[in-house]
Amino acid sequence: MQGLTPDTITDAVLDQMATTPDPRMREVMASAVRHLHAFAREVNLTPAEWIKGIAFMTAVGKMCTPERQEFILLSDTLGLSALVNGLHDSTAMEEGTHTSLLGPFYREASPTLAAGSQIAKTVKPGSEIVLYGRVTDVNGKPVADATVSIWQTGADGLYDIQESAASIDYRGVFTTDADGIYLVRTVKPLGYFIPMDGPVGDMVRAQKRHGMRPAHIHFLVGAPGYRELVTALYLRDDPHLADDVVFGSSGDLAVDVKPNDPGCPIKGLPTIRFDMRLSRETAADKAGGRVGADPSAILKQPA
Amino acid sequence: MQGLTPDTITDAVLDQMATTPDPRMREVMASAVRHLHAFAREVNLTPAEWIKGIAFMTAVGKMCTPERQEFILLSDTLGLSALVNGLHDSTAMEEGTHTSLLGPFYREASPTLAAGSQIAKTVKPGSEIVLYGRVTDVNGKPVADATVSIWQTGADGLYDIQESAASIDYRGVFTTDADGIYLVRTVKPLGYFIPMDGPVGDMVRAQKRHGMRPAHIHFLVGAPGYRELVTALYLRDDPHLADDVVFGSSGDLAVDVKPNDPGCPIKGLPTIRFDMRLSRETAADKAGGRVGADPSAILKQPA
Repeated sequence: MQGLTPDTITDAVLDQMATTPDPRMREVMASAVRHLHAFAREVNLTPAEWIKGIAFMTAVGKMCTPERQEFILLSDTLGLSALVNGLHDSTAMEEGTHTSLLGPFYREASPTLAAGSQIAKTVKPGSEIVLYGRVTDVNGKPVADATVSIWQTGADGLYDIQESAASIDYRGVFTTDADGIYLVRTVKPLGYFIPMDGPVGDMVRAQKRHGMRPAHIHFLVGAPGYRELVTALYLRDDPHLADDVVFGSSGDLAVDVKPNDPGCPIKGLPTIRFDMRLSRETAADKAGGRVGADPSAILKQPA
Repeated sequence: MQGLTPDTITDAVLDQMATTPDPRMREVMASAVRHLHAFAREVNLTPAEWIKGIAFMTAVGKMCTPERQEFILLSDTLGLSALVNGLHDSTAMEEGTHTSLLGPFYREASPTLAAGSQIAKTVKPGSEIVLYGRVTDVNGKPVADATVSIWQTGADGLYDIQESAASIDYRGVFTTDADGIYLVRTVKPLGYFIPMDGPVGDMVRAQKRHGMRPAHIHFLVGAPGYRELVTALYLRDDPHLADDVVFGSSGDLAVDVKPNDPGCPIKGLPTIRFDMRLSRETAADKAGGRVGADPSAILKQPA
């Protein structure tokens, strides 16, 4: 045998991986190798650039802890996460509310709270708002007893885990009532910089991107018989609604903070209304498992 | 603005990265994003598979220490390293000896040794061999005073750093004489499994690949005015010469162990002769820096 060349190496790798028993793994890895190689050939990747890439990926991995998922952040800033969500939406049997990024700050360990509870531990005077809405099927029929998980930053633009690993704040799990209504007291979220002190931040700065996400509140909504929905609402007046650094914001998920909302069960506070429509669940949805995962579950034990 | 779709997200990412001041970074990242997205679309990557990928990359990163470079191992097993070497060879001004993998076990800290020195600290009776050869330019003119770094496994198929982080064994730096000859005593290298106790090993096992490298000895050769050569010799009779798990072996780098070699300056021992031809160095070679890097330099500080 002679040496492999840039023109023959890809087939040699695919040949060697052809023994993979799991057909889906074989398909995914073959496509990954073909695109990885095509990329290297297209840009004529040099050994020095390859080493830079190895060092970058290593630094991203080293940054990961149960409280900080730098690979999710990388996927987010490269638009891969938004793409995967979009592909997921296109497999739904009905067109419900669109998926938005789970992001790296979701945690399974969130307190279960009664309707109308305040999710922020401390609320500065004047910052309290009400958040409510109706969860329905795609025809507008209310979905009762749906589980509505909510998480967001505090008024300083930081998530609880960014402040301290043990802190649980600005998150809660609610249940819809017989009319499909969820009801939450919280504080107005703030647009913020993604974590910029790691290798992904270095990349974003080197690209002269602003690094900001528009103000938003995350949702994870589940109910028996419906496809689980991972989404977020975005404040319409945020200057970065159209150029979110992680490509999660979207006009159809934008909401206004209204000085008062006659339809809201709690009166006298600025109010956001965000309704969500759930698609019925298919067998494939059920088998596919949850969209997104608690980053702390990805890496139970820090290195 | 409406939401991004799987068809529009790639352009949105490229638009946002278009502000990158460094033109090469802009080009490389744009190609990387296009291929990453094309891969996800092609296989219709599901959220559950995406999370699996995030968890895998995180585990690869966590495995990296100054003594263990799991991302290089991943690149090697996906054929990316061999492809980058092949692309590098095709930019040489002359066709010298082909590049082979640097691999994850190269270290800058190797002892400088006199011609004929034994690089193994302990040599079992009967296992000693001689390794020598001539370093020339592409026309066969000897290159004197070339630096020839050599590293290999012991007779147990392990590199020194796999035994202990502090150990330095089976490696040395030699210099060619006026006739371009380097001369080394060593032990016969053994084919071995790549490190199989990490996430890359899990991948290789799931693909039912054997995980073995054919027996080889690494070389890094440099001389003023010549392009630095990273290569390896492979034992021709190794059963895995044609299906190296990291795609580094090659017929044109294969050698025989001869019972005696009348041309060898040391008599009475089994002998390998491995000659190497160096291409003249261009300005671009000089600017490009070294092919490959000491993995411990990639990550000076373990997490």
